[in-house]
Amino acid sequence: MAIITLTTDMGTRDHYVAALKGAILSLWEQAVIVDISHHVAPFNNMHAAFVLRNAWREFPAGTVHVIGVNPEGAKQIPHVAVKAQGQYFIGADNGIFSLLFDGPVEAIHELQGGPDASGPGAVVKQVFVKAACHLARGGAPGQLGPERTSVNEQYIVRPAVTGDSIRGQVIHVDHYGNVITNITRELFDAMVGDRAFTLSIGHPSNNIRKIHRTYGDVIPGERVAFFADSGHLEIAINKGAVGNGGGAAQLLGLRVNDVIRLEFERVPEQA
Amino acid sequence: MAIITLTTDMGTRDHYVAALKGAILSLWEQAVIVDISHHVAPFNNMHAAFVLRNAWREFPAGTVHVIGVNPEGAKQIPHVAVKAQGQYFIGADNGIFSLLFDGPVEAIHELQGGPDASGPGAVVKQVFVKAACHLARGGAPGQLGPERTSVNEQYIVRPAVTGDSIRGQVIHVDHYGNVITNITRELFDAMVGDRAFTLSIGHPSNNIRKIHRTYGDVIPGERVAFFADSGHLEIAINKGAVGNGGGAAQLLGLRVNDVIRLEFERVPEQA
Amino acid sequence: MAIITLTTDMGTRDHYVAALKGAILSLWEQAVIVDISHHVAPFNNMHAAFVLRNAWREFPAGTVHVIGVNPEGAKQIPHVAVKAQGQYFIGADNGIFSLLFDGPVEAIHELQGGPDASGPGAVVKQVFVKAACHLARGGAPGQLGPERTSVNEQYIVRPAVTGDSIRGQVIHVDHYGNVITNITRELFDAMVGDRAFTLSIGHPSNNIRKIHRTYGDVIPGERVAFFADSGHLEIAINKGAVGNGGGAAQLLGLRVNDVIRLEFERVPEQA
Repeated sequence: MAIITLTTDMGTRDHYVAALKGAILSLWEQAVIVDISHHVAPFNNMHAAFVLRNAWREFPAGTVHVIGVNPEGAKQIPHVAVKAQGQYFIGADNGIFSLLFDGPVEAIHELQGGPDASGPGAVVKQVFVKAACHLARGGAPGQLGPERTSVNEQYIVRPAVTGDSIRGQVIHVDHYGNVITNITRELFDAMVGDRAFTLSIGHPSNNIRKIHRTYGDVIPGERVAFFADSGHLEIAINKGAVGNGGGAAQLLGLRVNDVIRLEFERVPEQA
Repeated sequence: MAIITLTTDMGTRDHYVAALKGAILSLWEQAVIVDISHHVAPFNNMHAAFVLRNAWREFPAGTVHVIGVNPEGAKQIPHVAVKAQGQYFIGADNGIFSLLFDGPVEAIHELQGGPDASGPGAVVKQVFVKAACHLARGGAPGQLGPERTSVNEQYIVRPAVTGDSIRGQVIHVDHYGNVITNITRELFDAMVGDRAFTLSIGHPSNNIRKIHRTYGDVIPGERVAFFADSGHLEIAINKGAVGNGGGAAQLLGLRVNDVIRLEFERVPEQA
Repeated sequence: MAIITLTTDMGTRDHYVAALKGAILSLWEQAVIVDISHHVAPFNNMHAAFVLRNAWREFPAGTVHVIGVNPEGAKQIPHVAVKAQGQYFIGADNGIFSLLFDGPVEAIHELQGGPDASGPGAVVKQVFVKAACHLARGGAPGQLGPERTSVNEQYIVRPAVTGDSIRGQVIHVDHYGNVITNITRELFDAMVGDRAFTLSIGHPSNNIRKIHRTYGDVIPGERVAFFADSGHLEIAINKGAVGNGGGAAQLLGLRVNDVIRLEFERVPEQA
């Protein structure tokens, strides 16, 4: 018997999330429900995908993840259940599934039927919850509806790479004000490796020339860059946060979509 | 074995809610606890009732709902456990129970004993939790205390209806900025039916003349009115929300208690 | 089988807390996880300790409390599991354990191994969660690592007491704006007892000369002082809160660390 998680932009002030939980427990009294987040920025697939992508790997096989962000479907946007790496993901096929996994998906099934009510929680409550309980109890995905062969793609900006620079972007600012970029450890290792580099963030006095391991490698209040466990380059202030002197986003003036420039010694031409 | 839900205005920053959960689990290790909301506007029975009213129907029979908003009782405000439609509701009889159900209640029992401590969580932790665990474990309501025959009423404003208009009010603004009114589908169908109508919201350019089925029936950024699954007329902006261009409340300048005027062709006199 | 609680400053918007829960459920599918709070002020041990201190006593014996505030250890700050009054507490030994209990601790064990990843949740997810699941399943604390004999101390300001005054401080402002001070009932009873007193809060018109039992002992909007169930003197406005006319902190201009002065008739010299 498996876990059902919820990722929504519904907030926790209204009845929407509680109604989802009631609906799950009415269908399946033994359900173990885990909140991923209900504070996704409204209608923001990129935010939802970032949060769920960095959480789902921690869950056991068979876990069912319900995505309640932009859940309304349409002719070109069916509701689907996607199986990937042993777990299930249920949502509208609006591009979000292309942002969640690195490898290929195992199976995609199109959910049948729409809601007979309206409002922020209606689709999730009437369509997704039913499918989630079916899967979490061990029901066959094939019973949900016809199989599909691919999910829709959502465009994302990838870093622009030249022989001596990487031009990345801020993709997330977290609760502390830590800045997460789209520059991955893999890309950094391949392009920069052990060569000297300069990470430019606005004013030259903010430049960073070293990758540390974690916050505590610098003194409190000092800026630090390292690869977070998501694999992404993070720029932070040790012990800095909103309400504690300011986090990196506040102190360095960085917001989602801002450019981060990393320059390094030109890679020598292969002989 | 049943579920215990919590609806409070205690927030999630302090220890109050966690102390409630510890107290429940100390009395009954198998309890399944579900948060309805802890972000009810402080001391606001109307808000608490709106949230719980739209959530409790989703829960299975036997669920016990603890209401931790204005929990302090008094001589005229006893603590009670109310059974309605197969579920239980525990709180101070300050009028809130008159806002939660459409039909009659099945039974009302007055809880005995007060707390021996003070602070936001004291009554709930010491009085309500004990009763909730008793009921959730299948204990008889009659053991909680003497039966009562009615709950106290709380006054609410209902729409003013004439032969060619309904004058309603905003009763809730949700997390997205969606505006929920006290005009129900039932009232609309009885008074307006298929006749032409104008829903006036401040400036004439904001007028709405059609009831849609859901958000996606209009293009993003456009205003839309429909009956939410609560049965109430909702005014929204498709894909609009606080932080995403503004929700209906922000863009149309609507707040709780504001008047919403619906005018329609005069109902012909019955011959 | 026991409960695992989480106290962090990670917020609920990001993936950090969900990743912790996934990691727990992957190690131990039967885990019962309870959120104490994820809205501790960032890096604030005093706040974390206040919240957890006032919640943990409600939990059943054997509960394991994970403290995800300032979790990064160092040579002088080992990660430890502390047993006290039949419950377990896991965190970095940065002083926080000296703020959680009144009596002595039963045992302290030093956790082995560090995380192989970085970011806000890494230590908690990789080190604390593993130890928590071990203990919650009934594993012996001794298997976690070598025993230690004491925890590090964190300095706290205690009230300054003279023969006719107590000079205390605000230690917490809660969700409602209620003001909690470091003046305890024990200290008050010992020094003031039944003698007349004046509690000075800024302007003389704000003075309080009576200790009540709870909020409802005064009319709504009126200031009231009583001993909360934490044992601390609380100053509040009955039915006052942020968003409901203002709580005591807003209306009386009080913030954490502000001085509260209590003056009383001089204690007669013992003959």
